[in-house]
Amino acid sequence: MAADRQVDTLMNFQTWMAGIQQRTESALDAALPAPGLAPARLHEAMRYAVLGGGKRVRPLLCHAAGSIFGVEAGALDAPAVAVELIHAYSLVHDDLPCMDDDVLRRGKPTCHVEFDEATALLVGDALQTQAFQVLANRIPGLAPARQIDMLQLLATASGSRGMAGGQAIDLAAVGQQLDIAELEYMHIHKTGALIRAAVLLGAHCGEAMPDALDRLGRFANRIGLLFQVVDDILDAEASTATLGKTAGKDAAQNKPTYVNILGLNEAKSMAGKLRQDAHDALAPFGDPAVRLHELTDFIVERTF
Amino acid sequence: MAADRQVDTLMNFQTWMAGIQQRTESALDAALPAPGLAPARLHEAMRYAVLGGGKRVRPLLCHAAGSIFGVEAGALDAPAVAVELIHAYSLVHDDLPCMDDDVLRRGKPTCHVEFDEATALLVGDALQTQAFQVLANRIPGLAPARQIDMLQLLATASGSRGMAGGQAIDLAAVGQQLDIAELEYMHIHKTGALIRAAVLLGAHCGEAMPDALDRLGRFANRIGLLFQVVDDILDAEASTATLGKTAGKDAAQNKPTYVNILGLNEAKSMAGKLRQDAHDALAPFGDPAVRLHELTDFIVERTF
Repeated sequence: MAADRQVDTLMNFQTWMAGIQQRTESALDAALPAPGLAPARLHEAMRYAVLGGGKRVRPLLCHAAGSIFGVEAGALDAPAVAVELIHAYSLVHDDLPCMDDDVLRRGKPTCHVEFDEATALLVGDALQTQAFQVLANRIPGLAPARQIDMLQLLATASGSRGMAGGQAIDLAAVGQQLDIAELEYMHIHKTGALIRAAVLLGAHCGEAMPDALDRLGRFANRIGLLFQVVDDILDAEASTATLGKTAGKDAAQNKPTYVNILGLNEAKSMAGKLRQDAHDALAPFGDPAVRLHELTDFIVERTF
Repeated sequence: MAADRQVDTLMNFQTWMAGIQQRTESALDAALPAPGLAPARLHEAMRYAVLGGGKRVRPLLCHAAGSIFGVEAGALDAPAVAVELIHAYSLVHDDLPCMDDDVLRRGKPTCHVEFDEATALLVGDALQTQAFQVLANRIPGLAPARQIDMLQLLATASGSRGMAGGQAIDLAAVGQQLDIAELEYMHIHKTGALIRAAVLLGAHCGEAMPDALDRLGRFANRIGLLFQVVDDILDAEASTATLGKTAGKDAAQNKPTYVNILGLNEAKSMAGKLRQDAHDALAPFGDPAVRLHELTDFIVERTF
């Protein structure tokens, strides 16, 4: 699987990205229960929450990390879908009235607005399960013991010491004065853990050795924070129409953000530093890491 | 692992049951994050929702099924804990205001009453993740490919075509007139799928062959329904104090139950028939199935 380590650097980044987004959309569609299948309303709502939107940043990272080791895209669809389903479930639950109480997501009404609260609760629950179900389908050519490691990795990243824990910390932080270290601690869990999992799952598919996993882990920690800093900058600067979700909401809810704590200019310079650190962490991989380099820049330069 | 197929039938059922309940409590305690670990409030709430209560029917079934094949109890703790964590998460979410809106569970305030709604939401989310994390720890002596099958089995039983789907059907059924076939369809998903998973996970630990798995699957389908019929009978007959949860609530909410549809007497005769079918399905296993026979009787005769 990891024989051919050549990445087609001739292919334009935009073309590569569009290709991965498209195949991820198809793979998500195939992984979700068919719309007419009973219970139909639940399945319809699951599909509503997942399909037809999203930048698919985590699947892109998973595919980009796998491409370092020459893994074929077909072998990366399952982990890419699994991590995106975890992300999707977290958004559905995060939008619920008892959490962020948000009505707009990816330019559409949130799941509990379009359906109802109880359905949205079950949608999140079932999407999480579906993530593990997808990753527990045997991946051809991969040692079963390695696949169990991947399931362990995804669970650890998603649970109370990872993403769900980060949301609990976020919840406790509303209205609180956080310093930069506390804010970083929150984001390392809330968004960082799953971004790291996306990168490492892709690398696991390439039977990556421990030192490569360590290096990619350090890279992922940087872009996880980078992603959040940029998000805070966008939230402070962009309009609701551009974002596709309610803009300025963090400030309105008195949530701590990098922009609140550091100010806009220093937040931007922090983003620049993280971007450079991320590139540096990839350096030993050379050319095969081109997609991860490009994605790092993309995370900074995205305007949506 | 499956060498010694002898079950210690001399040990009293009550003693065996108390032993499994005790070791399950210890294993759950060990599987859950320590109470002081950050985020402390989330971890405290997770432990509140899981520990110190519950009959542990699913772990008992898992251990009893494993004992047919001579599996040592130590090898059954992980699947027993995983299935109980899924059950516990479903109860926390089921009790939320947007679902059953219940305030009492196992004689204690429900999780969202004791803590708050957002925390209870995250508790359920994180308990589900923890279930997969526990089952993705390598089980010594078990082939990794078999363990992946077990993860697939647990996910399938828990998701939108299993337990979560059953809750969606239940939700849609409130205030509806269901016939007995529709009610059975709901319960096969809502409670039956996870009970079946508990039995089959135990059997998988014993490297059970397909015909034994089929037979145990049929047994589990019977006791899954049996469990629900008995629950409905208890709900109709018992007091809140005895149940440790709000009694007569199903009827008050106009939820379809076996007692509503069949009447108390016919529900009891249905329970008798299911009990006999369950025993019959176990017959080919002979003596080693003694614990499953005893558990079948226990499900019918329990008064709590």
